[in-house]
Amino acid sequence: MNILICSAGRRVKLVQYFKEELNKLNGKVIAVDCDPTAAALHHADHYEVVPRINQPEYIDCLKALCNKYKINAVLSLIDPELALLAGYKEEFESAGVKVIISNRDVVNVCFDKYLTYQFLRDHQIPAVPTYTEIQEVLKDLENGDIDFPLIVKPQTGSASIGIHKVDSLNELRRYEAEQNNFIIQPFISGEEYGVDCYIDMVKSEATHIFMKRKITMRAGETDKSISVNDPALKQLIEKLVLALKPVGPIDIDCFKTEEGYLVSEINPRFGGGYLHAHEMGFNFVMSIITNLQGKPNDTKINDYKEGTTLVKFDNVILF
Amino acid sequence: MNILICSAGRRVKLVQYFKEELNKLNGKVIAVDCDPTAAALHHADHYEVVPRINQPEYIDCLKALCNKYKINAVLSLIDPELALLAGYKEEFESAGVKVIISNRDVVNVCFDKYLTYQFLRDHQIPAVPTYTEIQEVLKDLENGDIDFPLIVKPQTGSASIGIHKVDSLNELRRYEAEQNNFIIQPFISGEEYGVDCYIDMVKSEATHIFMKRKITMRAGETDKSISVNDPALKQLIEKLVLALKPVGPIDIDCFKTEEGYLVSEINPRFGGGYLHAHEMGFNFVMSIITNLQGKPNDTKINDYKEGTTLVKFDNVILF
Repeated sequence: MNILICSAGRRVKLVQYFKEELNKLNGKVIAVDCDPTAAALHHADHYEVVPRINQPEYIDCLKALCNKYKINAVLSLIDPELALLAGYKEEFESAGVKVIISNRDVVNVCFDKYLTYQFLRDHQIPAVPTYTEIQEVLKDLENGDIDFPLIVKPQTGSASIGIHKVDSLNELRRYEAEQNNFIIQPFISGEEYGVDCYIDMVKSEATHIFMKRKITMRAGETDKSISVNDPALKQLIEKLVLALKPVGPIDIDCFKTEEGYLVSEINPRFGGGYLHAHEMGFNFVMSIITNLQGKPNDTKINDYKEGTTLVKFDNVILF
Repeated sequence: MNILICSAGRRVKLVQYFKEELNKLNGKVIAVDCDPTAAALHHADHYEVVPRINQPEYIDCLKALCNKYKINAVLSLIDPELALLAGYKEEFESAGVKVIISNRDVVNVCFDKYLTYQFLRDHQIPAVPTYTEIQEVLKDLENGDIDFPLIVKPQTGSASIGIHKVDSLNELRRYEAEQNNFIIQPFISGEEYGVDCYIDMVKSEATHIFMKRKITMRAGETDKSISVNDPALKQLIEKLVLALKPVGPIDIDCFKTEEGYLVSEINPRFGGGYLHAHEMGFNFVMSIITNLQGKPNDTKINDYKEGTTLVKFDNVILF
């Protein structure tokens, strides 16, 4: 069994996890990226430098590589590519290549932070209040429903890029004039949690839910985290998964506030903090392989130790 | 020979380099940090969790550890600790423990970005213009000597924390009201270079100068870099080292502009980008050990290959 990882970037450990499991089955991991200096390329069994995902030839290039390397399944590690690949799911699958990505509508809901909010609100799942219209913000500021500071961020961004804290009405108006496609949220001062779920592709239910509190962030990614096991959070996530119906690995960000947990973001892919789940034996890579073999995984919802800390640090590669 | 690394933080590779070299001599590396989750602690031969550097008992704690582990030399990896340890150099050395840090005046000049600028200017070394007084900025804006955008940053900061781009007079005045101890510089759009030097502690001259262009930054650190060998930059660095008289490992940041190189920052310690020099055979760790044995190092100024790329990626540790 051979798996193609698209936009592998700097996610070396994840590529290594795939290599480890696939090599046991005489399979291979092939990594692609548009940047030849992407570190993860250099840790796969094979790699190829491909066009940018917005180039017209990109999909044909992936198809040719699926053919060249006898690929059984494809997945991507970056948000903007998920919607693209989700749109070609049937085309790839008719050629015998499974695309390990949620359906297009799920991907779209997750990619756009305002759609995410609307989806959560419509399903009675507590969410961070999110606005696209300054008039609505002004109304809720007046009502006392929200207060400064506010956070302004791109409607479809990731990795904390382009996020600004706004402390006054004047500042907010400046953003109104300057920015397009932004959303506005109240600044939530609660602790941040990240939840890694695996939604089994055979039995269509969550087989793994791994919860962690984020201790420190670095470059928009979890740098240190500690495993937790809170039934209230688990229940919220189960409700979300039932409503959203994603497949494969997904990553959900939450805040813990005095009023309970609020969902802030859903990434329908391996999250940057997945390494913690994996290192504690929640091996989604093996789950994917089991599913690709047509078998369901055992449910292992919260069978892990609380209070275990994961810390990231730098390694290097020279070429 | 045993070496104590203070404020080891997340600098795992550096601790591993020390371990590798010291273990060959039956020596050990001992790492300390105030944070038990500091990843580098867990890669040393021994580690200890110590008080914060601003606690009154800190220095006594270090002295006790020097005794406990028969330490021959001490160094620190963070800027705020350099000045502290430089002040206790003689005290430690009279107890037989070498402190691998430049003299206190050198450390102070490097720690304060305005003192750095004054030093460079006084020694006719091209530097990024730096202001502490808004009146001076206004005068030079009027003269046409500088222009917006400007950069406002803490006078003694590091890792790009608290850096703001300022696009207008109004914004600048807002910072004047809000901030203390900041400096103002014009925004330089040139490419960034990092230079790792080793100044031999026996022969008191630069034995290694390794130059790299920074390709991408992440969390205020060089994430990707490419080795370069530019005689103009080398000459500038040699002039700086002769004037400043630092010792041991130092790291210098520069911009390349149409008018030539400008020095922007000097860190009299192992820089975050040192890994590139080391991986290419510029082994400052071995240089330190040689010096501690009372021997000078061979000069190896620019004996390395141009165009070699170093890329960082994440590894993890669980505890």
